[in-house]
Formats: sequence, structure tokens, C-alpha cells
Amino acid sequence: MLIDFSDTSLETKYRLLTSAVVPRPIAWVSTKDKNGRDNLAPFSFFNVVSTDPPILVFAPGPKLIKKDGQSRLAKKDTLSNIEETGEFVVNIVSYELAQKMNQTAAEYPADVSEFEAAALTAVPSSMVRPLRVKESPINLECKLHQLIDFGQNSGTGKLILGQILCIHIDDSVIVDGRIDPTKLDAVGRLGANYYTSTRDLFSIVRPSIAE
Amino acid sequence: MLIDFSDTSLETKYRLLTSAVVPRPIAWVSTKDKNGRDNLAPFSFFNVVSTDPPILVFAPGPKLIKKDGQSRLAKKDTLSNIEETGEFVVNIVSYELAQKMNQTAAEYPADVSEFEAAALTAVPSSMVRPLRVKESPINLECKLHQLIDFGQNSGTGKLILGQILCIHIDDSVIVDGRIDPTKLDAVGRLGANYYTSTRDLFSIVRPSIAE
Repeated sequence: MLIDFSDTSLETKYRLLTSAVVPRPIAWVSTKDKNGRDNLAPFSFFNVVSTDPPILVFAPGPKLIKKDGQSRLAKKDTLSNIEETGEFVVNIVSYELAQKMNQTAAEYPADVSEFEAAALTAVPSSMVRPLRVKESPINLECKLHQLIDFGQNSGTGKLILGQILCIHIDDSVIVDGRIDPTKLDAVGRLGANYYTSTRDLFSIVRPSIAE
Repeated sequence: MLIDFSDTSLETKYRLLTSAVVPRPIAWVSTKDKNGRDNLAPFSFFNVVSTDPPILVFAPGPKLIKKDGQSRLAKKDTLSNIEETGEFVVNIVSYELAQKMNQTAAEYPADVSEFEAAALTAVPSSMVRPLRVKESPINLECKLHQLIDFGQNSGTGKLILGQILCIHIDDSVIVDGRIDPTKLDAVGRLGANYYTSTRDLFSIVRPSIAE
């Protein structure tokens, strides 16, 4: 089956791409607005893209607001907050945190902290103002490096490039000085309502690099 | 444990970030150079980042070339080819293709086609010149949208933004008109030599969005 994207609805493109590009890592992003109010929300258009300099990207798409039979696109709080403050923390989601992560995907009013709504422990970060999720085994403190506009839905959805300043790693996931994938027990995002664990893992030795 | 990235070796940052941001989807990218020679290589700094317009990103980092006890950074063929031609295809890696995908991660001379080296079937694409991997259940044909330089290792590693022109989906992975995750059976990248299947999947219903 061949589907030409120049002639495909937004809904179909979204459904196909989120089912085809899998498994996606999950950035559970904490921010503060300029008044210091806390926000926490998950994003799966996310990955690390460079280690030198250490850069990650994630893309908060526009949110669809329906009211009185009309719908319009608006900017998500996470994007507004990062534009205002230039700082965020990416918290990694372990299997046992998946339900709480999902709770923070609901649209709460701006004055509700998702930390409280999902009964999570907010702890101070070391180099940025947004709080970390204490229950997350890994937190990456970031500052805004670059914002990229895709030229469509201008202003409501963007690609955020963040420079990673430091990383917190819970001792419980470290074995022999390294992050152990079975201890980290991260989850990934698939299409529709599906997620995957990383428990069915296997190893392949990389071929030697010619010199 | 807190690790400050301003005072950490490149090797440590790479090891930590590739173990922390998981599971990563795999872009198995086919390109042609300006002389029409085929290349195929896997990248896990990859994700979809927008559906309207449909945009994916992947980052071919620099390759390390060691010779006569010296080492230097060079540009990977995939990046050179996309800079020359502006076109590429992302092939999705199913569990049964994982070993062949890994074979194409070896550094072959530029005149060797990884399609032949890994005994894969190259078939023409619909809207771009690079060939598709017939054995892949999904192929995304893309044209270059934007190149982003991270400002360090200038020129040897970049972030590639690609506009998705069309998608090929093998009928075998479609159930009731949708891509079925158990039929797609994609694999994801973890740290070190680890991969994960997407077979241990579960479902969480997204909370309702307030209006």
C-alpha cells in the first residue's frame, strides 16, 4: 500500500506516523512558567541527537481546543514555559511510573500542578529552576539551545533543541558503574494507546569498524 | 548520582545518554551519492517530530577514523549523500531484520552497496531516487527539509530534518485498516549492544482532554 502524504488528512498522517516510527522514548518534561507555577507533561516526539555538544530534541505539537462546536490550535503550556524561561527537565519514565505519566497528559488548568495531581514528589534541580520528578530514575536538566518552527501552524507547535547540563541517576539503576537496562525498566510509546516495556531485550554485537 | 556535563568526557556522555534515552526507534536510511551509488545505514538518534507538515529528524553523528595511531572525525556517507542529493528513504526495522540491519552498520568502502553486502532486496521508490529495502514492512520516502549544525565538530555531524513525501506499508502489517504493532514487530535501540522488541506491549487509555 502506498499513501501519498500530499493528499492525506492530518488525522491519517498522525495515525500512520505514530504507529510506524516506534518505539519512541518518552520525555516527561517539567517546566515553570514566569510566575513559578509548575507544569509536567509527557512527549514522545523526543530523542537525543548529539553527544558533543549534548543535545536532545522534543516537539510539543499544537493542542486542539474545541469550544462551542469550533476548534482551534493553541500552544501547549510546556512550549510557552520554555519560551518564557529557557529551562526544562526531562524525567525518564520507568514501567512503574507509566500510569502516573499518563495522568499528567490530561489538560489541567494552568494553576494546577501535575506533580500534585498525580501524587508525585517534586524536588529541586541543581542547575535550573524547574523541579525534578523524584520517582523518576533519571532526570536530565536542560537549557534551551534552539527553537525551530516548521512553518505551518506557526507558533503553536515547535521543535525544541535543549542542551543537557547535567544528569541525575538513581543508584538503584546502576550496575558496575553503568545504567542497567533491566534496572531502568523504561517504557516506550507505540501508536494508538499502546506502550512497550523494554523487558524483552536482546544483544547484537556491532560489526567491527574498518580503519 | 549527579554528573555535570561540563566536566565529563565525550565517551561518558555518549554512554550515559544512549543508555538513558530509551527505547529509540531505528531509521535504516537508504541514500544514493551523486554518482548513483547506493548506501544503507542505521541511526537511532531518530524520531518523527511533526505530522503537519509531516517531518522526521535523524542525526548522523561524526565517524571516528583511526589511522597510524591518530584519530580524526569525518562525515558519514549518509550525510554526504543527503547534502548532495536532498533525498533519502527511512526503512523500518522489524525483529526478523535486526541482524541484517546490524550488518549494514559496518564501514564498507563507498563502492560497496550495503544492500548486496547484507543480501537485501533493493526496489525503486515512488517519489525519490534512493532505493527502498523490500524486506522492510514500512518505507518513508523523504526530501531534505533543513540541516542543523550543532556548532561543534562543525560539518561532520548534523541534524537532518526530512519532509515525508509518502509511505509504503506492507499489507501483512495492516489489520482493520491500521498498522498493527504486533504485526509490525519493530525493534528499538537501547544502550551498549542492547535492543528491545516491542512484543511486551500494554495499553493505557489517555485521559480525556478538557474542553
